[in-house]
Amino acid sequence: MNITLCEVGPRDGFQFEPKLIPTELKLEVIQALVDAGLPEVQIASFVHPKWVPQMADAEAVCAGAPEGRAVYTGLALNQKGVERARDAGLKHVDLSISTNPTHSRDNANMTLDEAVAQMCGMVQLCHESGLEARAGLQCVWGYKAPGDTPIERILDMSRQIVELNVESLSLADSTGMANPAAMKETLRAVQEVAGDTPLVLHLHDTRGLGMANVVAALECGVTRFDTAFGGLGGCPFIPGATGNIATEDTVYLLDSLGLNTGIDLEAVAAVSRRMEAFLEKPFSGKMYRLVG
Amino acid sequence: MNITLCEVGPRDGFQFEPKLIPTELKLEVIQALVDAGLPEVQIASFVHPKWVPQMADAEAVCAGAPEGRAVYTGLALNQKGVERARDAGLKHVDLSISTNPTHSRDNANMTLDEAVAQMCGMVQLCHESGLEARAGLQCVWGYKAPGDTPIERILDMSRQIVELNVESLSLADSTGMANPAAMKETLRAVQEVAGDTPLVLHLHDTRGLGMANVVAALECGVTRFDTAFGGLGGCPFIPGATGNIATEDTVYLLDSLGLNTGIDLEAVAAVSRRMEAFLEKPFSGKMYRLVG
Repeated sequence: MNITLCEVGPRDGFQFEPKLIPTELKLEVIQALVDAGLPEVQIASFVHPKWVPQMADAEAVCAGAPEGRAVYTGLALNQKGVERARDAGLKHVDLSISTNPTHSRDNANMTLDEAVAQMCGMVQLCHESGLEARAGLQCVWGYKAPGDTPIERILDMSRQIVELNVESLSLADSTGMANPAAMKETLRAVQEVAGDTPLVLHLHDTRGLGMANVVAALECGVTRFDTAFGGLGGCPFIPGATGNIATEDTVYLLDSLGLNTGIDLEAVAAVSRRMEAFLEKPFSGKMYRLVG
Repeated sequence: MNITLCEVGPRDGFQFEPKLIPTELKLEVIQALVDAGLPEVQIASFVHPKWVPQMADAEAVCAGAPEGRAVYTGLALNQKGVERARDAGLKHVDLSISTNPTHSRDNANMTLDEAVAQMCGMVQLCHESGLEARAGLQCVWGYKAPGDTPIERILDMSRQIVELNVESLSLADSTGMANPAAMKETLRAVQEVAGDTPLVLHLHDTRGLGMANVVAALECGVTRFDTAFGGLGGCPFIPGATGNIATEDTVYLLDSLGLNTGIDLEAVAAVSRRMEAFLEKPFSGKMYRLVG
């Protein structure tokens, strides 16, 4: 069986790094990731540079990204972001809202109803602009505490999103609060309402359960995951929070289970080691230290 | 269901730390771990201090360990080690040999046949001395490469050990090469030959699959695991190798699955943070940074 990984290192990994990464270096990283076989790469987010200075060159990154077999995506959190993604020439946009009222207020200054309305507007704009829209939900497994958004709310929001006719529905464990039991319970419930809309999982390894959660999701039939080279990422506002699940570790796990990704683990690890040297900090992934 | 964790931080965690840890501090750590509810603590190894200087105070640690509800164990790799453990007053000894001929030669300068003979002698001495013997196999999931010891050899050695009438049979993924599929395959095969002898798993998180491997083992019915506070440990001779699976992360995982350990996660995390400060290096576990 084939599993599709979307590399989010150039967006989720880079976004809160305090050391500014030159556009040229970002483009070299993207090229190397595509060459390593990543079929999808999230290369930028279209947020205000006041909030995320590292993403101020989103348009330049999109303009310079090498043409190739990979699908490039960008993150948009509002209509302005979708417009920028469209104007930057992307064909696929990742949209995202929170499922947790406190997180939605803290992070986006919106109620959940406002967030759903925002998502509707963004998807509509994508459709009008000929963009594929992946619609994402944040904090599905918790914000301040595991499971602090009731499952009914997750299902209700999933249902509303699926009705918008999106390319896929992404569920994010933004704070790394999922565990294998909760993963299976939530996935099976969401799959009921998602029908034919494919699910994508966006996991963080904050509590060390990232790979165990991938196994649980595989057992539920999920075949698409976001990962970041080296396990880069993590939110500066969550103390001790570590990053996304590592691309290399996930490829290693999948390979050991006989599942194919088409990704060259050693080539991804070379990217991680290069960026670890540039950013001057150890990454949280494991495999990138051991190969190549 | 109850799961029993054996804390190996004071032995496997400390043994290769270059900074010498005073006996008094080791005893404080052991006291804190017992107070945190760890039912078993491996407090020393009886190896030659020339090879492992950090364990030169094994007898003093045994003499000073607080009396309490925890079972104390020590690691012995030869008859001399068993004699020292006995003379130090321990009632339970962990014995260990390798399953991989190259590792056995590199690490213990023995053929596998010699290793099995050594194990027989050690178990016999334990029985004569009234000591409970846990007999362990190293590198069960690989040494230089995953699965580089044939399963037939693992089963053959397991069978020979079980016939010695040991308290339990411990299987070590010394190099962190197990994955959930290999974990289940090997466990099911070993369980066939182990019969009523309980299995214990000793896992390392070298490749990021530690918690996923615990889940796989739980699904096979294993209820006993070695863990180290903070994920301390790891072999200096294996580049990039990280430590044992972290006690805190394992407790968190088990708790999320509704399995009881009786261990106070925050109290263990306090030990990790204290020793992280003393050893002046970040540990590889995740949860100890997030609680307390």
